[in-house]
Amino acid sequence: MALESKLKDNSTRMNKLYRFGMGLDMKNNSDGLVSRLFGNLVSSMRKFLFRILSVGPIPNHLAFILDGNRRYAKKWNLQEETGYKCGFWALMPMLKYCYELGVTYVTIYAFSIDNFKRGPKEVQCLMGLMQEKIEGLLEEESIVHQFGVRVHFIGNLKLLPESVKVGAEKVMKATANNNKKVLLICVAYTSTDEIVHAAQESCQRKWDEIREMKPGGGAHSFEISNESQEEEERRFIKLVDLEQCIYMGVAPDPDILFRTAGETRLSNFLLWQTPTCLLYSPGVLFPEIGLRHLVWAVLNFQRAYSYVEKKKKQL
Amino acid sequence: MALESKLKDNSTRMNKLYRFGMGLDMKNNSDGLVSRLFGNLVSSMRKFLFRILSVGPIPNHLAFILDGNRRYAKKWNLQEETGYKCGFWALMPMLKYCYELGVTYVTIYAFSIDNFKRGPKEVQCLMGLMQEKIEGLLEEESIVHQFGVRVHFIGNLKLLPESVKVGAEKVMKATANNNKKVLLICVAYTSTDEIVHAAQESCQRKWDEIREMKPGGGAHSFEISNESQEEEERRFIKLVDLEQCIYMGVAPDPDILFRTAGETRLSNFLLWQTPTCLLYSPGVLFPEIGLRHLVWAVLNFQRAYSYVEKKKKQL
Repeated sequence: MALESKLKDNSTRMNKLYRFGMGLDMKNNSDGLVSRLFGNLVSSMRKFLFRILSVGPIPNHLAFILDGNRRYAKKWNLQEETGYKCGFWALMPMLKYCYELGVTYVTIYAFSIDNFKRGPKEVQCLMGLMQEKIEGLLEEESIVHQFGVRVHFIGNLKLLPESVKVGAEKVMKATANNNKKVLLICVAYTSTDEIVHAAQESCQRKWDEIREMKPGGGAHSFEISNESQEEEERRFIKLVDLEQCIYMGVAPDPDILFRTAGETRLSNFLLWQTPTCLLYSPGVLFPEIGLRHLVWAVLNFQRAYSYVEKKKKQL
Repeated sequence: MALESKLKDNSTRMNKLYRFGMGLDMKNNSDGLVSRLFGNLVSSMRKFLFRILSVGPIPNHLAFILDGNRRYAKKWNLQEETGYKCGFWALMPMLKYCYELGVTYVTIYAFSIDNFKRGPKEVQCLMGLMQEKIEGLLEEESIVHQFGVRVHFIGNLKLLPESVKVGAEKVMKATANNNKKVLLICVAYTSTDEIVHAAQESCQRKWDEIREMKPGGGAHSFEISNESQEEEERRFIKLVDLEQCIYMGVAPDPDILFRTAGETRLSNFLLWQTPTCLLYSPGVLFPEIGLRHLVWAVLNFQRAYSYVEKKKKQL
């Protein structure tokens, strides 16, 4: 019982902290004058810091692998689910900082196709949590409304439970007209699956295209024999065909990819999109990520900016 | 003249150092007793160190992005070409250490497709250097003979000048029966090009497969209408189809990817192959890379080994 009450306590405290961090308790808190003043001071200092940072180039697209939630739970003797919740509570302020700083696109790796192979209880718990958070995106006080964010769910959505899939589609539809910021949530995603899907789709499109073009064969049959070289070349899938079919085609390539917990592996995330991306691996577990990591990553991005841009122009 | 002589001096010294490091001057040097003794001592100490390292798991495949050769030349006021040569002289002992340690596959990113966009003089110089080094691979004293290395050139070889292409093919043919170690040299390579090529090839194979299977249509024509679902599914490119057509399919995925010069970008190298790979970015320029970096990377690999293997099994 003592442990349960401790967990509940911890969870409530984290929730409070999150709401404080997001500025949600500012208005209604009766003893909130000091909190409000402190909150305003912190917010002003952050904005001042962002103005200084904005003298240099600001990345357009940041991507995050949310690594270390389970290890965080283990470290603090919490339930796994609480670890994931703590990860979410760390993510929300990070999103806010990104958008405040002027970043337009943020991508998060919420759930990999490989994660379906975890224990059924864990998968179920994660899906429940995801559904709850997806529904939360449409709440009035959510970050989506605060910054006019368009949300895309990226991945093989057919693999999701029906209720989560429906929720995701509802959010995409509801935010389709938001045009200030973009949030890309990768669920049931791996890069390998994304590339295979793009190859399938490109091949299918080529197939249909040629079928329609072939004279004499109509829509249903065609000859392949004695093709001219031009026709044969047209059959080849090209880079542009694949790029048109890639799930992440709705956003430019990321400028910085964060992977917490000191890991320097990409874990099958955005492989296609990271040829010139800066990889940043702070040693902290994801729930411990904070403003300082964002600032440090942006400073590194700015330091390498002219060199990377020169390289990109050579491509 | 003074500068030229300095460069020549430097070049000769580097060459001597290289030959010394590779143990090539040991036998013939007339005043070589001290050198030989020192060389043997260094070699024994290295082998002792490797035996200690071998108590833990040893990576099977290491990959290198040779970054920083031009910056090295600039730093030491050398010609660009000398910078590349210094990179080569640093690479040879590194290959030797890898094979001595027990690594089976080593991949190096020698020349990207994007590098063709550099100045024509630089491209020409690089191609000349490449041809020279490719020819050197077949010399009796080369690392290829020392360790029984099979060499693969990976990439869109059609883009290379004819003489380089012929040289590369000759080396591949001459080493085709070596089966102890493998060296993969990526030239005229980018991951994007590799994936597009694999998609093209898979699509073409599917196309041919279905054309052959269709009853009634013979080898020259076929109907697409009224396909059964099974037939339609067979048309889909799958992961295994792409993997069969990927250039790097001759080797397992790398365990560690080195990128020198402190850069944490993949520069369109092995994107498909690095979902679970450890990325290691020492701050030194490539010609400054040494044994200590290899040892440090292997220690990091060993530290993360059980965790990464557990992850891989979940895939």
